[in-house]
Amino acid sequence: MKTGRLFVISGPSGAGKGTICKELLKTEDLDLSVSMTTRKPRGKEVEGISYYFVSHEEFQKTIDEGGLLEWAEIYNNRYGTPKAPVLEKLRQGRDVILEIEMKGALQVKKSYPKSVLIFILPPSIPELKKRLVARGTETEEQIELRTRTTIEEIKTIKDYSYFIVNDDLKTALEDAKTIIRAEHLRVEDQAEDIIHKYESEGK
Amino acid sequence: MKTGRLFVISGPSGAGKGTICKELLKTEDLDLSVSMTTRKPRGKEVEGISYYFVSHEEFQKTIDEGGLLEWAEIYNNRYGTPKAPVLEKLRQGRDVILEIEMKGALQVKKSYPKSVLIFILPPSIPELKKRLVARGTETEEQIELRTRTTIEEIKTIKDYSYFIVNDDLKTALEDAKTIIRAEHLRVEDQAEDIIHKYESEGK
Repeated sequence: MKTGRLFVISGPSGAGKGTICKELLKTEDLDLSVSMTTRKPRGKEVEGISYYFVSHEEFQKTIDEGGLLEWAEIYNNRYGTPKAPVLEKLRQGRDVILEIEMKGALQVKKSYPKSVLIFILPPSIPELKKRLVARGTETEEQIELRTRTTIEEIKTIKDYSYFIVNDDLKTALEDAKTIIRAEHLRVEDQAEDIIHKYESEGK
Repeated sequence: MKTGRLFVISGPSGAGKGTICKELLKTEDLDLSVSMTTRKPRGKEVEGISYYFVSHEEFQKTIDEGGLLEWAEIYNNRYGTPKAPVLEKLRQGRDVILEIEMKGALQVKKSYPKSVLIFILPPSIPELKKRLVARGTETEEQIELRTRTTIEEIKTIKDYSYFIVNDDLKTALEDAKTIIRAEHLRVEDQAEDIIHKYESEGK
């Protein structure tokens, strides 16, 4: 049976990785990876759908057992990607998608080297600045800092398999769908299954 | 400037690689690689379009100079793929497509490791037999031999990047177009150019 693929969508903030991920889930046959967190549920958040909500002890135990593909601590709360549900879905032949910041993406690749890393790029630095100015939530200084950070972050693109320039959302989504489909046409670990199929038919 | 890609379409005879190649050239922005041969031109064949027609001496000189991506001798005539025109097109950012039998495909990969090898598979062994019987040009014994050869040839699929099962031609062509498009979204040797673009814009 065919194994699913883990697609990791990452990129600088403001490039639009969240939107791309959300839109893909609407049309493609993909499962979203659910994170584990130590923070308390908010509003309508549902256990096992929004997050797996766990205690600090349980989170630490999962780390110790090597049960996370990646994790990080943000404002005293921990967030991570549990390995078992992802691997189980892949084993069932389901594709899984994971949206994550760049440090996390590289951790995932280390934990599961077969993951397919996709870097979402802003169309250009001037365009990124324009978007941030239009949003109006940051000072000019903050925007300058953000720009410099983005350029530094883009330097990690070498560790990624694919890149998508998110200029026009429709084109960016087509690119993402193209990548997902092409990955299933790659020989790699399917070679043995292919050979076995034709050999059996020839007997 | 972006470098073009060399797509090598190969697979067992009867799988339909020729048709796929011909159809792709009608709709995609691709250049077909032109072979060099020592055989004489036939009918309406045009120098530089059908083939580069050369003498045995010229062919041998090109081999000696390492000027062929691959070559083979068939019934006292030699056929090969000249390296220079392919590399020149790739340098100009053009994609090049090359349809070739399997030994040649592996030679091309050795001469130009960045080439993208695509294996065209028949839908199944029973279906391949049915096609050969319908064609009516071979004896039952010949068809059996052909089937066994095909299975042996499929074992070389491990050296390929992609596979396409040519069951329905329309789907097979969509698969090929998906592969061509996805290859341009691969980071690989584009990383430096991408980083350079955003760095310059930030200055």
